[in-house]
Order: sequence, then structure tokens, then C-alpha cells
Amino acid sequence: MRKKQGLLIIADGLGDRPIARLNHKTPLEAALTPNLDQLAAMGMTGNVYPIAPGKPVGTDVGHLHIFGYDSAVTYSGRGPLEAFSGGLDLMDGDVAFRGNFATIDEAGIVIDRRAGRIRTGTAALADALTGMVLSDGTTVLVKELTEHRVAVVLRGRGLSDRVSDADPGTAHEGELLPRPQGTDGSAEAARTAELLWEFLTRATPVLNDHPVNQARLVQGLLPANVILTRGSGQKMAFQTLKERNGIRGACIGGDLTVLGIAGIVGMSVFTDDSFTGSFDTNLKGKSDWAIELLHQGYDWVVVHIKATDLAGHDNAPEKKIGMIEAIDAMMGDLIRAVDLEQCLISFTADHSTPCEVRDHSGDGVPTIIAGTGCRRDGISSCSEKDFVRGSLSGLTANDIFNLQMDLMGFSRKIGS
Amino acid sequence: MRKKQGLLIIADGLGDRPIARLNHKTPLEAALTPNLDQLAAMGMTGNVYPIAPGKPVGTDVGHLHIFGYDSAVTYSGRGPLEAFSGGLDLMDGDVAFRGNFATIDEAGIVIDRRAGRIRTGTAALADALTGMVLSDGTTVLVKELTEHRVAVVLRGRGLSDRVSDADPGTAHEGELLPRPQGTDGSAEAARTAELLWEFLTRATPVLNDHPVNQARLVQGLLPANVILTRGSGQKMAFQTLKERNGIRGACIGGDLTVLGIAGIVGMSVFTDDSFTGSFDTNLKGKSDWAIELLHQGYDWVVVHIKATDLAGHDNAPEKKIGMIEAIDAMMGDLIRAVDLEQCLISFTADHSTPCEVRDHSGDGVPTIIAGTGCRRDGISSCSEKDFVRGSLSGLTANDIFNLQMDLMGFSRKIGS
Repeated sequence: MRKKQGLLIIADGLGDRPIARLNHKTPLEAALTPNLDQLAAMGMTGNVYPIAPGKPVGTDVGHLHIFGYDSAVTYSGRGPLEAFSGGLDLMDGDVAFRGNFATIDEAGIVIDRRAGRIRTGTAALADALTGMVLSDGTTVLVKELTEHRVAVVLRGRGLSDRVSDADPGTAHEGELLPRPQGTDGSAEAARTAELLWEFLTRATPVLNDHPVNQARLVQGLLPANVILTRGSGQKMAFQTLKERNGIRGACIGGDLTVLGIAGIVGMSVFTDDSFTGSFDTNLKGKSDWAIELLHQGYDWVVVHIKATDLAGHDNAPEKKIGMIEAIDAMMGDLIRAVDLEQCLISFTADHSTPCEVRDHSGDGVPTIIAGTGCRRDGISSCSEKDFVRGSLSGLTANDIFNLQMDLMGFSRKIGS
Repeated sequence: MRKKQGLLIIADGLGDRPIARLNHKTPLEAALTPNLDQLAAMGMTGNVYPIAPGKPVGTDVGHLHIFGYDSAVTYSGRGPLEAFSGGLDLMDGDVAFRGNFATIDEAGIVIDRRAGRIRTGTAALADALTGMVLSDGTTVLVKELTEHRVAVVLRGRGLSDRVSDADPGTAHEGELLPRPQGTDGSAEAARTAELLWEFLTRATPVLNDHPVNQARLVQGLLPANVILTRGSGQKMAFQTLKERNGIRGACIGGDLTVLGIAGIVGMSVFTDDSFTGSFDTNLKGKSDWAIELLHQGYDWVVVHIKATDLAGHDNAPEKKIGMIEAIDAMMGDLIRAVDLEQCLISFTADHSTPCEVRDHSGDGVPTIIAGTGCRRDGISSCSEKDFVRGSLSGLTANDIFNLQMDLMGFSRKIGS
């Protein structure tokens, strides 16, 4: 069959629950969305589960599933993803952690989990630690990420990623730094936890003596004199979208987690300083890029918008409505610019972030697949309430990926 | 509970997508189907996925799932199925291929993938090759099938079915016969590929010298002097429907693939020269047989009709509408002839073959389960669009099989 292109817009954390002061509507139901309504009328709709009903996901796992991967098979923790996004090239057997530069006192109490939200100097601190060789010959790689964030990699023989977090967590700031433990009872995990602890305890004096921290003390700032680690994992083995589905994919956005996942699965990644990952992001710039990349011949172009999720975390329904209406205007531009005979347009979210919950939930996310030749299910209003009756309701993010590939002509027959 | 009988009508490739020149209706939506509408009103309806959303299947795999089997467990390639349908009784360890008698020139170029659509003499050609012993003692079995088709079985020790096709494919007719390769890197697969190649190269001189081909050359016809092989697989291990579900099943049709699958799962198979697998098939004859077999006491009688699929492959919406209306008339005969108190009537398809796609797609297929005692979901129009709101929507072919068995009283309780 003739192949089509596909365009997918992801409104992060879009799904919500009824809110009393919105007259028991969700933000999407309260928003004016003429363009999303039009898109719904041109195709199939529904509330789609990221993985399964009642199972909330993180942005990373949600996007893996939107891109057609099963996190149960491919995902082993956030550490490897953060290391990848920091430019560390993991080898088989490496164990990677995400972490924070933080402040610890002489008694081992974690005083501040973000070292006073340190923003500068972390590259020099990471440089002072990277390459440390531990007692058994294991080497440590350390790479600064944005703000106080950092990636740590242990590279050696016989390591395990079944290691608990060396981080008291937000709720236990002001308590002792917990000593990491193996979590599966294996000798490898216990040994890896010990090696991590050796690194963490040897890092603190190096950090305390570092000129960056000496200068911070003079300025009355908290020193970044410990690393808190969490999210241990090993290298994720991915077939790229090209290898698996035969498509050239591109992802446009400002959020480093999403761009990192897109990069790992082999999509070309496009960003700009004006794509802020917040309410002031440049939606016009994103839609212009999307149209340009479709013209360049990419098979599948994904546009990511973060701020709907932020509004959910902030319990700010009015800000969520405003962002949804801004996205709707962008959808109008895209619907008018794209030839629906040649290109499928889809719309979804990675998860719900209900304002009242202030965190991700396991609710279904409003989803549309539309274009010439798509079946239509007769739903012409984009909302959680109306999408209950849509033909996609109850399906999963992986299903939605497979339906897009099938409608674009990139699915492969099972049997003959 | 009292057991009931079941009757299932399968309209191959029935599902479709909106077509502009049908005023954006599907062929099923455009067709007049008073009897299918009546059946829908008497039961449960929905668009059902053969395996999963967006996953297209072949006719063989589609029917395995309609019969309640999981192809991921039972299906290892088309070769074993074709060998079975040709009457070859596979043993564990055999590797079977489906293939064509074809024409190759002295330089190894495949001139015609069907040997000028040879129709006679292939039994004698197969007889001349079957029983060939290869260099390591492996024996080759060869059995002619319909027209130019043939099944090849390698019987020996340590063989693998991970072998690539020795067939340039339709798009590469006029190119060299590709030498088969192992596809999983194993020594067994590489050795099996070499043994297959030994057979293919030794077969050509035998075929060239055969009187059938000598006669064809005199008549100016292309000789059948090579076998192209594809679809390697090993014996499929099946519990029959009788063993697994305790039912006696029968299948009525004209398509050899479907009848082959039905035979493998232990159904009695009924065909007739007037069941052509095309638009001129004898629908009255099929429905008469169905009623007769229900009278004979079969628990589950399946009637297969192929032409709806052919119309999809040919992008012929009007022919598809015509065939659907002919099937609808047959459904009327069946509804009137069958006692709905005693017999469930169901209707489905193995997959969608949208006219615009001209191939199988991963869309859901319109499905009905009806009869006295069935729940009703209030849908009384048989169409993809209306079935979105049916109670079976989003289920799979395996689910539909299980629902039929349960309504017929042949399901088994899990737990106590």
C-alpha cells in the first residue's frame, strides 16, 4: 500500500479528573477546543491507558510506550537514561545512577538534597570525581546534568543494578544518608552497593576541598559535598524505530527527558532555546518545525509540550485550561498546513496529571487518531467524558502506536 | 447447563475503511443488510481485533485465532500448514516449506515464478523428486498442491526451520534464485540451508529431463524446472477442538488455506467444486450444508466465504458491497432455518482488507454473537461505525471464540 506520514502531538500530563470549581469538568472539558473537536470528528477517539488501567507512569516510561516500546522489557531505571542524556556512552555491564549534588554535614546528615539549588560549578565538581578507581578496580564516571543533577556510572566486572537508593528522599531531608544495599539478595548486588558506598564516602572529602565549594562557603552558600544516587539501571538495549518499524522519526520539544528517550530510540531530536518546557514555550516555533520536518520527508514527526503537566503538578486548573487552548490553536495551524490525504494527525498524552492529585495518575489519556481513510467513531468533542464512547477507549499507548503504524502503511503482516 | 450448537459465518477480509466515493462509508455501511441488522439486534456486536489493535494478520493466522488458538504459541510458518493440506504427515524435527514450481534459465535467473502457471503434470514431477536422499542422509519429501504450488519437507537429524526463502519474490522475478541462509546464526540453520540448496540444485536436472517438461518444451510452454521455497516451519503441535473444548467442529468452504487450518485443529472439512473461493461461489450450497451438519449433530459449524477479501485486494468496493449483500441474503436463509433457542449464530471476519489498502490491515472486524439467551447491546445496524458502541468492541478473536464456547455451554470453570 501507499505509505503515509504521521504527525503526533503529545500534551504531557493532559488527562485530568472533574474539578469542583470548574463545575465538575476537567480542564480539557472546560477549555474551548474547536480544532481538537474538529480533529476528533475526523477520526477515532478514546481514553487510552499508558500501560494498564490504574497504573501511573513517569514521563520516561510513558514516552517509551508512546514510541511503541514495552518498558517491562526495555526499561531498567532512570539512571541509564540520564547518563545517556548527559552524553555518557554506556557499555554492557555498566551500572548507571541518576543523582543530585547535595549537602551533608560531618555527622552524615543530608542537610539539603540540592546543595542550595546549585547551578554553576557542577562540571568542575564532576571532573574532580570522574575516573576514580575503586578498591577492586571498578572505575567511576561522573557527569553533571542540568542544575544540581548528575549521572554516576560504575564500570567494572560482575556489577548488578539491583541496588537501593543512596538518598533519604524529599520526605526525609535532614536525616542520615542511607547506605545503599543490594535488593535481590545476590552477592553481585551486595558488592555493587559496597562499591557505590566506597565511591560516595571517598567523594565527600574531594568535594569539600574543591575550589568551587571553598568559594561557596565564602559566599555563605551550601557546599555540594555529597552525591545522592537513585534509579540504578543497566544499559537499555533498543532496536531503533528504523530497525523495528522501518520509519524515520523526529521529535521536537524542550524537555530533556523526552528528548533523551527520543534519542535512545533513534529519532532525530530538534530543540530550540525558545522551547522552554514551560508555559512560555514557543508553540508556533514547534509547529513550524513539524511542518518543515514533514516536508523533509520524515515518516513520523512527534511534537512534545510539557506545560500541561506542570499545571497539574501545581494544581493550577486555569493555567492548564489556558495551555490547552494555546495547544488547540496550534492544532488548528497544523490541521490547515498538513495534507490529511498524505498525513495522519494524532494527539495524545503520556499520562494524566490531575490537578487535585498534583502527581501522575493511572487514568486513561484523551487520544485522537485522524486523517483521510481513518474510520470515524462519531465523537466530535475532545474531552475525557465524550471519549469514553470512542473506539480507542481502553486501548494502551502501545496499541495507539501500532494503529498509527498500520494506518501509515508500516505494519507487518503476521502469517500469510 | 444444557448445551447449544453454534453456527459461525466468516466473511474473509470483511472490515474496511471509509471510501470517498461511497460518501465516506465502508462497503458494509453502504450495503443493504437487513438480515445482518436483524442478527445484530438479537445479540452482541463490536469491532474485534484479530490479535491486537494495529496488527494485521494473514488468513492462516486469522483463522487460528478465530478457532481459539494463539499463533504466537502454535504457528511456525506457512510451510507445515501447506504440507499438511497436501496430505504429508509431519514428524517432530521435520522442516517444511511451501513453494512453487517455477522456471529457471541456465544462468540461474528465475524467469517465471509459476512456470507459466502450470496446472497439470506436477504430481509426476513431485514423484520424481520425493524420496531424494541428501549427502548427510536427510530425506526430501515433495508433494504437489493446487496449480503450480508444492510442499517440500526435509526429514533428518538436527534440522532448523530458521531458513530464509529460496524465492526472489514477485517484485524480483527475473533475478537470480537466492541461495537460502540460516537466519538465527546457528550451525543447525546454516546446515539446513545448505541441505535445502543441495536439494534445489539437484532437482533442476531431474526436472529438466522429465517427460512432463520435455512435452512442455515441444508445446512451447515454460518448463517447471526449479522449486522456489518459502515459509519454513516445523510441525505445529495442536490439541484438537475436541480435545481442548470437547466440541465436534465442521468447516464448510472453498479456500484451501482455511480448510487446511480447520483440518489441523481437527474439524471435519466440507467442500464442493461449486465452493470456488471467489465471487461465483455457491452460497446456497454452503448454507444447505451448514443446516445439514447442524442436523447431523456437529456442535460448531463454520462457514467460510472468501470473495469479500478478494474485492478488498482488488480495490473493488462495489464488488465488495455486492458480495456482502449476497452473504446477507444467505444469513436470512440461515436465521430462518436455525432454531435460535438451540443454536447460537455468530458472524465475523478473519481480518480487514480495506479496498484502499489492497491488503490486510490491523483494523477491528465487525462481529456479532446472537441467539436466545444472549445479552443484547442495543445495536441494530451492522456496520463498523455502529459497532464501535457494541459490547464486543476492542475484544480479540480468541475472546470471541471463548464467548461462543461459554454461551454454548462448553467452557470450563477456573477454580471451584
